[in-house]
Amino acid sequence: MAKMTPRTLSGFMELLPGPQQQMERIMETLRETYTLYGFTPLDTPIIEASEVLLAKGGGETEKQIYRFQKGDSDLALRFDLTVPLAKYVALHYSDLSFPFRRYQIGKVYRGERAQRGRFREFYQADIDIIGDGKLDILSEAEIPSIIYQVFTRLGLQRFQIRVNNRKILNGFYASLGLTEKSQDIMRTVDKLDKIGAEKVSALLTGEEIGLTEAQAREILDFIAIRGTNAEVLSALAQYQGRSELFDAGLSELTTVVQYLSAFGVPEDHFAVDLTIARGLDYYTGTVYETAMLDHPEIGSICSGGRYDNLAEYYTDKQLPGVGISIGLTRLFYVLGEQKMLNEHLNTAPADVLILPMTEDLSPAIALATRLRAAGVRTQLYGEQKKFKAKMNYADKLGVPYVVFLGDDEIQAGLVACKDMVSGEQTKLDFNATLERIQAGLNERSQGKVIVE
Amino acid sequence: MAKMTPRTLSGFMELLPGPQQQMERIMETLRETYTLYGFTPLDTPIIEASEVLLAKGGGETEKQIYRFQKGDSDLALRFDLTVPLAKYVALHYSDLSFPFRRYQIGKVYRGERAQRGRFREFYQADIDIIGDGKLDILSEAEIPSIIYQVFTRLGLQRFQIRVNNRKILNGFYASLGLTEKSQDIMRTVDKLDKIGAEKVSALLTGEEIGLTEAQAREILDFIAIRGTNAEVLSALAQYQGRSELFDAGLSELTTVVQYLSAFGVPEDHFAVDLTIARGLDYYTGTVYETAMLDHPEIGSICSGGRYDNLAEYYTDKQLPGVGISIGLTRLFYVLGEQKMLNEHLNTAPADVLILPMTEDLSPAIALATRLRAAGVRTQLYGEQKKFKAKMNYADKLGVPYVVFLGDDEIQAGLVACKDMVSGEQTKLDFNATLERIQAGLNERSQGKVIVE
Repeated sequence: MAKMTPRTLSGFMELLPGPQQQMERIMETLRETYTLYGFTPLDTPIIEASEVLLAKGGGETEKQIYRFQKGDSDLALRFDLTVPLAKYVALHYSDLSFPFRRYQIGKVYRGERAQRGRFREFYQADIDIIGDGKLDILSEAEIPSIIYQVFTRLGLQRFQIRVNNRKILNGFYASLGLTEKSQDIMRTVDKLDKIGAEKVSALLTGEEIGLTEAQAREILDFIAIRGTNAEVLSALAQYQGRSELFDAGLSELTTVVQYLSAFGVPEDHFAVDLTIARGLDYYTGTVYETAMLDHPEIGSICSGGRYDNLAEYYTDKQLPGVGISIGLTRLFYVLGEQKMLNEHLNTAPADVLILPMTEDLSPAIALATRLRAAGVRTQLYGEQKKFKAKMNYADKLGVPYVVFLGDDEIQAGLVACKDMVSGEQTKLDFNATLERIQAGLNERSQGKVIVE
Repeated sequence: MAKMTPRTLSGFMELLPGPQQQMERIMETLRETYTLYGFTPLDTPIIEASEVLLAKGGGETEKQIYRFQKGDSDLALRFDLTVPLAKYVALHYSDLSFPFRRYQIGKVYRGERAQRGRFREFYQADIDIIGDGKLDILSEAEIPSIIYQVFTRLGLQRFQIRVNNRKILNGFYASLGLTEKSQDIMRTVDKLDKIGAEKVSALLTGEEIGLTEAQAREILDFIAIRGTNAEVLSALAQYQGRSELFDAGLSELTTVVQYLSAFGVPEDHFAVDLTIARGLDYYTGTVYETAMLDHPEIGSICSGGRYDNLAEYYTDKQLPGVGISIGLTRLFYVLGEQKMLNEHLNTAPADVLILPMTEDLSPAIALATRLRAAGVRTQLYGEQKKFKAKMNYADKLGVPYVVFLGDDEIQAGLVACKDMVSGEQTKLDFNATLERIQAGLNERSQGKVIVE
């Protein structure tokens, strides 16, 4: 028979069993943490009607969208989890209670140019809190505190959540009479890290934007405000009284900083950073980015912010909210590249491999049943192979324990068990063997998924 | 602004938060159980190259496939999890250890005619064991025993796993000299339940198939074999010696029945049933279907079997295996329709809702942090609303406990906590409150997801 060469599309992550176990661990930590904070899981379709998905229209993403015809239907694959959330909330509005807190971990699709570390199918892990008409500022502090928890539980240490408030930026530009140019200015100022203050200044005073030297200097001075959170807030206080919007933003930011401490986020893990603007005009208040301190080249691994109107394309209801999103597939890829995935964690499919040494497999089956009932992941090996081949298999699988069950053991009511790391072999009764295995597994599962 | 009416495509399941929590519970039980049996999780792309996905070509499903062009690429959405598994195993062959045991719970796509209870996007939950060259019969008993565990853990009681062996059927037809007609015969015999023995007999002896009356009678007698598993096996023993294939099948079936008992599956939950054939020519040995005894109209909720060649379209390697698949979305739909989902389980997004009664939310935040650290899913309510509105929200959300935190409680170091079911309210210190909450939650989580 002619064979088709098997392949996986480029830009699509397909993991081997070991890494997949690590990925599952990360997802499990995310689910656990989000759940602890009272977020309910959602699962929306991957395919939506194009007109629904693209109600907002235009934008960068439209070109990248997977869109196709099926029968009479014009369909598209979701490119984020926010638009489906907006649709969900508008559609099921009367069945939901607000504030509505949901998390969703799901695949999204963008037909980007294929390149290393860029994915066309990737997981996003989103949390959002949606209010009906109003939403208290508390949520704007809680959201990043959850992200702090998530990354800390995963084992990430050298990260920082950077917080700003769009009202501060917009209010500041308004006070300079530059509201209409604020989008252009922010886009330009965004390049500060890359091209330096001088070139930014040149661009700001250039023909296209056309600021005065004084305006450009004021903006660069403002953006250059640095220091501890208290220092930045106190520097910002000196701009007060020039714009209501600015003052509202500063008050919000001050509250968010105060509550972030109350939520137990250490000062070195969050920073007020006036350069954070987030591209989307969608955000209206607090905005977040998250940096891996030793890997600035990666960009933000978790971003989001406050918005005033989640579902304006679907409903007249005013639905303000705040949300944040982890680009999980890319993060996982980076962690792998940086050798930051904890290799000491057990990624074998089982904790124990039972090698029966008798023809009748019933005693081995009974033993497997007892181990599984005790919560031990157990694989029963039924193949007729030489002993050496069986041990090779155990080795390759990476199982921590191998159990041998021959006539001798069965008659004596004992279990022979080999610790595959230490090489130590014991012959004990079932309970003593189980205790030893559980103690060993417990020790091995202590570490976190990410090591730095 | 003109609004787009939000909608979800027909044939796509989108659950409200309560049912979604039940669905998550079911998936979690599946993951836990599969994991206990030493299956490793896999996650393959939803999109594949069409030529790869359709390497086998043709068949019923081809018309239903979501297939489209993106740039130069001819792409398709997976329509099951078996073809992606075949691709995965062929592609990563040298990185895998055999027997390779994987589970996958993922969405698949089939553009079927939309009708109630039929889905175009649906979850399949698959387990497979793949051997390299050979695979011991033990796996053919282990697979249905896992399914027994899964359904039992979910709370399903009135179900039966029905087992047959294709070699018995093929061997029997061979012994009648009817090998070439066996596909037609099986398809006809499959209608027995629907149209009765007389009409089946008429079809068998009709022009199209052309059996003799004697042959038809022999087939109907054979298919009519009923009784306990021991009785059926002993009736089958009388056909021994006429066909090697039959004898091999009977020996396998006998072993599977013996091991199913060893795996702890009670006799009333599995039955040898000679009418089970499974449409696909792909199966070569043991085959399974699973019936809900009180809902025969639903058909099989979990099916699978033994195959000799998983990936013959991709590789020369002989990769025999055995697998089974639960059609999860349809099962969930049926359970909902039949009111079999346990409504007493907590489907609220949180266990505790904290209503702060002070302006400064820091004490409420600190309390939430302590509860979460103790594993209690806690939501903090920060909205400025009237007390009644807050309690309405708690009611609608269905949270089991509401905690009130005012100045009095803060100063006295106490927590006021209301059990929303009994209405009982206590004012105790943190530890006593936590103990009460945990005991209550523990009690409430005792039940299984499915009730009959």
